[in-house]
Amino acid sequence: MFYTSRSIEQAVEALSRLPSVGRKTALRLVLHILRMPQSEVERIAQALLSLKRDTRPCKVCGNLTEEEVCSICASINRKKDMICVVEDIRDVLAIEKTGQYSGVYHVLGGVISPLEGIGPSQLNVEALFDRVREQPQAEVILALNSRTEGETTSHYLSRRLGQAFPQLKLTTLARGLPLGSELEYSDELTLVRSLQNRVSLLRPQPSEE
Amino acid sequence: MFYTSRSIEQAVEALSRLPSVGRKTALRLVLHILRMPQSEVERIAQALLSLKRDTRPCKVCGNLTEEEVCSICASINRKKDMICVVEDIRDVLAIEKTGQYSGVYHVLGGVISPLEGIGPSQLNVEALFDRVREQPQAEVILALNSRTEGETTSHYLSRRLGQAFPQLKLTTLARGLPLGSELEYSDELTLVRSLQNRVSLLRPQPSEE
Repeated sequence: MFYTSRSIEQAVEALSRLPSVGRKTALRLVLHILRMPQSEVERIAQALLSLKRDTRPCKVCGNLTEEEVCSICASINRKKDMICVVEDIRDVLAIEKTGQYSGVYHVLGGVISPLEGIGPSQLNVEALFDRVREQPQAEVILALNSRTEGETTSHYLSRRLGQAFPQLKLTTLARGLPLGSELEYSDELTLVRSLQNRVSLLRPQPSEE
Repeated sequence: MFYTSRSIEQAVEALSRLPSVGRKTALRLVLHILRMPQSEVERIAQALLSLKRDTRPCKVCGNLTEEEVCSICASINRKKDMICVVEDIRDVLAIEKTGQYSGVYHVLGGVISPLEGIGPSQLNVEALFDRVREQPQAEVILALNSRTEGETTSHYLSRRLGQAFPQLKLTTLARGLPLGSELEYSDELTLVRSLQNRVSLLRPQPSEE
């Protein structure tokens, strides 16, 4: 495309490298930024620069933080023997948002994906084994997604962890019908899973706490 | 939401002020940026900072540029007596992309919108009159959108320009059925307009060139 301003061209070029931002969206963002006060633009630029410069993985769980150890791992209110294994920090945020989880996390930084050349050695897996080795009676909750890569990773982790630490309590998130959903509109796989994992109504279920 | 990193929180906060970027999209962008090389992130930050700092309106047409006069106004290959009046630089880009327009532009920087408190005095209108005053036999093409604000602005400009410069050639973009469209799927207003502005097949039409 033909731009009369090199700055605009460069900004469109730079922004369109972000995911799901095409050149048209980038240009719309650029036009918006041109109308913002310069102080606001500087705030965005500084926030972007600070992102990689100031954050590092928590040395316990792999979550991103400015400190050595993230605030969740450092909290005295969190149960250190309940470790929820997630793919990335978005999952941490999603679970934290519920306000109902009092354990700690382990962020893998991805899932096993042979197609993308990601094996266990590229993930934060050995640190998980080190953590479990220190408390072999902990509960490890595998909270990975239910697509092929997530299931593969869950399977890999549960087999290796189960063999190495027979006393470990290994669990995974319940799969089934979402709350408020209609039976007739649910997909078959979910329905099959919710039938297989049906829950007794007579005994109270063991809750997380 | 609960972030374990202040940098991530600030970046999400900053990015979610951009149009059509919510907090979820902002977080996705942030996670992508965290995986980019720092040099690339610096390129984005610098591009944003340069945007407002280095660009200014072309003193002839109002298009954004780093120079005194934009490359279109400065080009000797452009017809200076054919002035296409547009709302903003996106419209310039759209018309330039066709590669079929050899005149120059005049960027209003908006359209008259009483609801948003934008009147002619907030727009780049007086500069247009100054330009036309120097060449009262030019052609002015009003290429504004066909929503109410665009039509209002067209009407305002054509009345004032027509009164002040009776020799001016005032035109507007043809409205009608888009190429490749089906009659039965077109909206009624477009169909009415394309009937009203029907074109003779016997005489060759005056082309832009």
